[in-house]
Amino acid sequence: MPSDEEQVREAHAAFYEAFSDRDMEAMEDVWARDAPVSCIHPGWSLLVGRDAVLASWRSILEGPAAPEVAASREVVHLYGDTAVVLCVETLADGQLMATNVLAKEPGGWRLVHHQAGPISMAIEFEDDDDDDDDEGPPTGFLN
Amino acid sequence: MPSDEEQVREAHAAFYEAFSDRDMEAMEDVWARDAPVSCIHPGWSLLVGRDAVLASWRSILEGPAAPEVAASREVVHLYGDTAVVLCVETLADGQLMATNVLAKEPGGWRLVHHQAGPISMAIEFEDDDDDDDDEGPPTGFLN
Repeated sequence: MPSDEEQVREAHAAFYEAFSDRDMEAMEDVWARDAPVSCIHPGWSLLVGRDAVLASWRSILEGPAAPEVAASREVVHLYGDTAVVLCVETLADGQLMATNVLAKEPGGWRLVHHQAGPISMAIEFEDDDDDDDDEGPPTGFLN
Repeated sequence: MPSDEEQVREAHAAFYEAFSDRDMEAMEDVWARDAPVSCIHPGWSLLVGRDAVLASWRSILEGPAAPEVAASREVVHLYGDTAVVLCVETLADGQLMATNVLAKEPGGWRLVHHQAGPISMAIEFEDDDDDDDDEGPPTGFLN
């Protein structure tokens, strides 16, 4: 039996496979059936509920401009039967940072939330060292 | 004893209170001590670990351009001892959509992940109705 982390990574990979394959059936399978779901596409406001979220994905996957996307640098944090996966999404025209939240349902780990947003600065991963006190964002970066 | 949802809303409000009050001590109290933490500031890449995340908040709160921020339209989704809270962040120069993930630690609900990203389209919340099939994002919205 694969560990929870392995199952989470597999479910996370299945999401990006459905995305890049424009496979709506697989996308429906990825999202939770019972747990509440939500989604924040880049630049978009919040979508709540399986119907609204899947309708948005259908619109993206079936649209003429469905983006090619690849996930990389996945970081998995487990909180019991919930997992937060952070990753970089690489598209033709740039990179996004994504948060994906998964929950363990009777049928396995499923996506319950997705947010992706643009990265305007270079990728720089930081470890949990004590020597990074001077590596925070520059002040005023929100302006 | 307040319900889990009430406790989550309270912890979530404490995060934005610490943010807008520029109160670093309160900010340190908001973030989880034991559970793994992560943060994606707008336009920024991923920060992992309590030290890196708190260093970034210290840099923001103590900087000359610390933004005024107010959270609104909170949506709380509970997954056992983990919660996902979605909200709109209103700043002087625009609105962001935020994902906040909280986990229940022995001392109470604490923040384990934060991502905020710009909203470029009008706020429009959708319900989980079946009549919203034509309300997905416009195709090509990522380009």
